[in-house]
Amino acid sequence: MADDIAELDEALRRQADTVRRLKQEKASPEEVAEQVAKLLELKAQLGTDEGKHKFVLKTPKGTRDYSPKQMAIREKVFNIIIGTFKRHGAEVIDTPVFELKETLTGKYGEDSKLIYDLKDQGGELLSLRYDLTVPFARYLAMNKITNIKRYHIAKVYRRDNPAMTRGRYREFYQCDFDIAGQFDPMIPDAECLKIVHEILSGLQIGDFLIKVNDRRILDGMFAVCGVPDSKFRTICSTVDKLDKATWEDVKNEMVGEKGLLPEAADRIGEYVQLHGGLGLIEQLLQDPKLSQNKLLAREGLGDMKLLFEYLTLFGIADKISFDLSLARGLDYYTGVIYEAILLQPQNAHKEEPVGVGSVAGGGRYDGLVGMFDPKGRKVPCVGVSIGIERIFSIMEQKVEASEEKIRTTETQVLVAAAQKKLLEERLKLISELWDSGIKAEMLYKKNPKLLNQLQYCEDNGIPLVAIVGEQELKDGVVKLRVVATREEVDVRRENLIEEIKRRTCHP
Amino acid sequence: MADDIAELDEALRRQADTVRRLKQEKASPEEVAEQVAKLLELKAQLGTDEGKHKFVLKTPKGTRDYSPKQMAIREKVFNIIIGTFKRHGAEVIDTPVFELKETLTGKYGEDSKLIYDLKDQGGELLSLRYDLTVPFARYLAMNKITNIKRYHIAKVYRRDNPAMTRGRYREFYQCDFDIAGQFDPMIPDAECLKIVHEILSGLQIGDFLIKVNDRRILDGMFAVCGVPDSKFRTICSTVDKLDKATWEDVKNEMVGEKGLLPEAADRIGEYVQLHGGLGLIEQLLQDPKLSQNKLLAREGLGDMKLLFEYLTLFGIADKISFDLSLARGLDYYTGVIYEAILLQPQNAHKEEPVGVGSVAGGGRYDGLVGMFDPKGRKVPCVGVSIGIERIFSIMEQKVEASEEKIRTTETQVLVAAAQKKLLEERLKLISELWDSGIKAEMLYKKNPKLLNQLQYCEDNGIPLVAIVGEQELKDGVVKLRVVATREEVDVRRENLIEEIKRRTCHP
Repeated sequence: MADDIAELDEALRRQADTVRRLKQEKASPEEVAEQVAKLLELKAQLGTDEGKHKFVLKTPKGTRDYSPKQMAIREKVFNIIIGTFKRHGAEVIDTPVFELKETLTGKYGEDSKLIYDLKDQGGELLSLRYDLTVPFARYLAMNKITNIKRYHIAKVYRRDNPAMTRGRYREFYQCDFDIAGQFDPMIPDAECLKIVHEILSGLQIGDFLIKVNDRRILDGMFAVCGVPDSKFRTICSTVDKLDKATWEDVKNEMVGEKGLLPEAADRIGEYVQLHGGLGLIEQLLQDPKLSQNKLLAREGLGDMKLLFEYLTLFGIADKISFDLSLARGLDYYTGVIYEAILLQPQNAHKEEPVGVGSVAGGGRYDGLVGMFDPKGRKVPCVGVSIGIERIFSIMEQKVEASEEKIRTTETQVLVAAAQKKLLEERLKLISELWDSGIKAEMLYKKNPKLLNQLQYCEDNGIPLVAIVGEQELKDGVVKLRVVATREEVDVRRENLIEEIKRRTCHP
Repeated sequence: MADDIAELDEALRRQADTVRRLKQEKASPEEVAEQVAKLLELKAQLGTDEGKHKFVLKTPKGTRDYSPKQMAIREKVFNIIIGTFKRHGAEVIDTPVFELKETLTGKYGEDSKLIYDLKDQGGELLSLRYDLTVPFARYLAMNKITNIKRYHIAKVYRRDNPAMTRGRYREFYQCDFDIAGQFDPMIPDAECLKIVHEILSGLQIGDFLIKVNDRRILDGMFAVCGVPDSKFRTICSTVDKLDKATWEDVKNEMVGEKGLLPEAADRIGEYVQLHGGLGLIEQLLQDPKLSQNKLLAREGLGDMKLLFEYLTLFGIADKISFDLSLARGLDYYTGVIYEAILLQPQNAHKEEPVGVGSVAGGGRYDGLVGMFDPKGRKVPCVGVSIGIERIFSIMEQKVEASEEKIRTTETQVLVAAAQKKLLEERLKLISELWDSGIKAEMLYKKNPKLLNQLQYCEDNGIPLVAIVGEQELKDGVVKLRVVATREEVDVRRENLIEEIKRRTCHP
């Protein structure tokens, strides 16, 4: 609803511009009248008179705020992901949120239209990053790095059609792990898949499957099916739609829009139905057509076999499916590609299953760094990107369903007053606690009621209350109350910090 | 140098556009010739022929990448800052990197020209966030929150003139802590200053001073000096320049640009020289002119006195200076304002001291949330923003000067092979280690030399090596080597994980 208003608002603005322009250009009265009529219609829809501005209180389309509760879930997810990346020895880097426009140009194929550009306000032309892979390649070329294993967690931007209930946003996090360097075949590639497996297992969000394929196998397949070289990338983009569209629709696009011969499409149609494991790889290595395509398909199939051997040693081959329909949309992949999907909705009772779909993807891109290097020097790379918005959606629903109470602060003790006129004593005490590293709060009132102070602890899960009172001040003690049990003990002021640390397992 | 090229590149593009336009518009041959001459000159400067595009490999002006080493320092700084925010019971939120353009409109006064707008690609008009305060106020109004203590750490964007060696960037982090809600005077305000004190002490980057003032005192001062109400904000912006400009320049701007009477400026000039503590507050409360100004100055001075009492209870008053020249540039402050500066350069031997200047600032803004609420309901707020780029610069220099070696990974053990043909065994072993939560790496070679594997540990600070060899496989053991001491022990395969955990203090 808010989106509708913003869009109407935007349409109104544009229409007003049109009318203004027509008047300036001294267009015919009929033409102006027609556009003015449209303008008035839009104003009526918005319910504003004379274009009076109506302020819309919202975040931009396709974006969201994170509340403290959502941040607590986000932190949990990040900890699992970062923990896995660090377990595999990755360093971490960061890059700016925008890049020179030309850095992103020509890297994404048909998806380039989704890039957010910044307004030309003088100076350089800039675009928001579309992923973390191209900035990584730019970073490697710029710093002449030929060997690194790094992770990078940051937001990326795509002017796509958002579907926020299903975790599809225009601003969303990617958690990327990449290995750059000249190594023996498929060893880093296998580790990327191991990482996906560890993360998805660790998150406990249900069963999953990791589909793998290879751009060389796809290209070899296209070649033997009769696709001209020049159409490999665009036909690949069409195959990529198979997870959302039917084969009929995909074939229509190949033949109708992209001018492929129907027979070629049909031949592709046979291959893309295939999926399996080592058996399928062996079968295709015997395929009389594919095996002729030595440079591409055979090499890809040989490496795929090696990959499955390594995945078997890692004990994860049962979650991996070699799937000839997997294509991945982006232009820059050159070898193995993969995508992880969640197999069953967590909320089977809901009509629209939430969170089913791709949650991770990646592959090998041996040519991308060379596109940035002045001398075209290549740095082979392979990596994986975890898309966490869908994972968040599922985790959020899990938390809501469980009615588990999530704490959003770590406060260990509330400094409270038993009577009035003790603000100074509270300020002195809390200052001591903070300086000793204890997480402490107090109410920002001069004379808060004790009941309100205790209630604040209940509401916020604070386990301890340090109560100062007139008698306690005289006796040189502080009353320490355990919120859960209502147990109270007098603790000598000089022992208070130690006692709080002991009770909250603070080191 | 790279910047120059990008700017030339940009100028070239613009000039080519101009020539194209003139030709289209059938301008006079003289006019076209003149512009073509300019274009050729620019091309000559760039050294390109016929506008051949020269790709510039850089990050946008005023932005930077963070290398793994820089990220290690950044993590250290963040841990201290986040630790402090959590110690004070703050929750955390996040907001999108861009907002609707109108959300930012009219909030920043003269600084608004520094906002980055996104290109109009259809749909809403968007701008990159300029700070975290306005998005916070928008978040409160949108969610009808009247009471929250939150922190938010994120990048903000300003099209300012960057001075990157001094830590001034166009993309930079802000670490914000704010308290929203109706509370008794100056209690949350004092806590914000306590937080600045704790963070700057914790970072150990040298001595610092926190200047405080109050917008009400400033406005009262302007009133008694004869500044018309309508000029309070713009004169305030000019006073804000006192930390970089001389009084002469500031006075010239007041009189010349902003049309203030010279006598009024001179009267301001006397006040803004004043700084001190409780004594100065008492003195000003007796000031015959200022004390007449009951609504503004007296109220502000009364609160300032209270603030100093609380700061004394917190034991930090010695680092606080009540300074009448402190104005803060932003429009939205309504009460107390403050700014922390580092007092002495860390690198006194260098010619240009690095990092001297403002590292934190903030204040009270009781009207901002009301600007977003449809009914104008106010939510009083006070907060502080830590600007960490300058702190990073200082920390980076400290690390470089100390020649301390910073580890950028946490890898505990390298899985190595003593002979050839042991890739499978290494893959099996490392997989077991990962699955047990041990941080492990291996070289991505089929048959790496043992020496290279040991060297990798030296280079990367990895403390342990788990070596598989033919004899060890037969004996059912793994050789565990301590890199620092070169000590080696055979550990039974089934005890290896426990032994590694024991040696790396892994829980």
